[in-house]
Amino acid sequence: MTAAEARARFRSGHVTPTAGLAPGHTQANLIAVPVSWAYDVLLFAQRNPKPCPVLDVTDAGVPHTSLAPGADLRTDLPSYRVWVSGSLVTECPDATDFWRDDLVAVLIGCSFTFDSFLLAAGIPLRGSNVPMYITDRPCRPTPRLRGPLVVSMRPIPADLVDTAVSVTRLMPAVHGSPVHIGAPSDLGITDLSHPDFGVPVDLLPGEVPVFWACGVTPQAAVMASKPPFAITHSPGHMFITDALDTDYRI
Amino acid sequence: MTAAEARARFRSGHVTPTAGLAPGHTQANLIAVPVSWAYDVLLFAQRNPKPCPVLDVTDAGVPHTSLAPGADLRTDLPSYRVWVSGSLVTECPDATDFWRDDLVAVLIGCSFTFDSFLLAAGIPLRGSNVPMYITDRPCRPTPRLRGPLVVSMRPIPADLVDTAVSVTRLMPAVHGSPVHIGAPSDLGITDLSHPDFGVPVDLLPGEVPVFWACGVTPQAAVMASKPPFAITHSPGHMFITDALDTDYRI
Repeated sequence: MTAAEARARFRSGHVTPTAGLAPGHTQANLIAVPVSWAYDVLLFAQRNPKPCPVLDVTDAGVPHTSLAPGADLRTDLPSYRVWVSGSLVTECPDATDFWRDDLVAVLIGCSFTFDSFLLAAGIPLRGSNVPMYITDRPCRPTPRLRGPLVVSMRPIPADLVDTAVSVTRLMPAVHGSPVHIGAPSDLGITDLSHPDFGVPVDLLPGEVPVFWACGVTPQAAVMASKPPFAITHSPGHMFITDALDTDYRI
Repeated sequence: MTAAEARARFRSGHVTPTAGLAPGHTQANLIAVPVSWAYDVLLFAQRNPKPCPVLDVTDAGVPHTSLAPGADLRTDLPSYRVWVSGSLVTECPDATDFWRDDLVAVLIGCSFTFDSFLLAAGIPLRGSNVPMYITDRPCRPTPRLRGPLVVSMRPIPADLVDTAVSVTRLMPAVHGSPVHIGAPSDLGITDLSHPDFGVPVDLLPGEVPVFWACGVTPQAAVMASKPPFAITHSPGHMFITDALDTDYRI
């Protein structure tokens, strides 16, 4: 399935997590806010580059991106979340009815982008969506946006942890190297089997939990900071771009 | 000389290019604009990450940065340029009289940061400031900011060009790999001996001109786009931070 084919399926209403779909094509997190809040989002991203590496920003009212010419950001993701004053008001497969002319869409790198490189390096991956956790680490705030770091977790065989670091550090635009290795409690995570988003993955004997910064972090900032309006992707249900994973490897 | 000692000298009025000063400490380009233009600058930077990698952004009215606690951005650079409606109105060693409470200071990575790594890799560097050239390549614009790419040039022995690429590509926050190697005319540069900024450097036999994206690019955008007000560093006269060069190496 190509990226365009995947987007067409989502446009026609198909809802699914996107991990592993359209292999080789970069996936992205979405946060769209009124242009009056766009500076805050970019500033928050600049101050928190590990969870919020920005891949593209649209002009206000333009639901299209150079990362996927012809795509429509209002319809081409499998699932959206609509936020009013920090509260999730609906989750839906089409955001057209909620889109506004003053929205700026910010696309943020996704760690799914490095999964193919992890696999190529001999690191096994399991599950159709990663588990994601809200940590107790605060992001560096801006005057109007604050919130905790969100991370994704992949179980990595202990003898391959160094390989996982080496592979991902070369891809800073899609979260880069891990933010933590081995001790969930250091991040304030008490129970790996109950992620805040996504699907839990069992830790097998000999595996180490490795945590990467996650592009759901802006959604945690929306919850904490209550901007008047935002549309995001649903965690794990990403925008699949035409850009290549290799484009984001140094 | 430490970074703090260099800043103290500049604060007391000493004017000099900063290449090679306070070795090991990251240097940065400055562009300060009214907060009403700060989004445009961040968006321009996001759309042009090679010339404009953002290292820090201050809150409006705060002339201090986490990259150098205790430093004052109004006084601690050796030379400033003050711009009104895209015109250079003065160049001065102290910007205090021109600073405004609504200014946001954006600090952008500088290629001086990788010079020590080039030297360590056996690549000879000459001159107290690099030559910089305005190219004929347009940056990706924003609704209110447009302008050409500016580049710096270093002559590199032909058999070390691949080393220069390998070293600098690991430092994307300070411009990363070259944007062009070998043919100045491909960038619209007609005469290497007459740079637009900085000091010319002779090309010796066997040397290739190698071009990196340059943090003077926002100044070219100021000239082309005429925002009402801006304060920048003078080309080559950088802000020396307490951050380490190694902090920006992947």
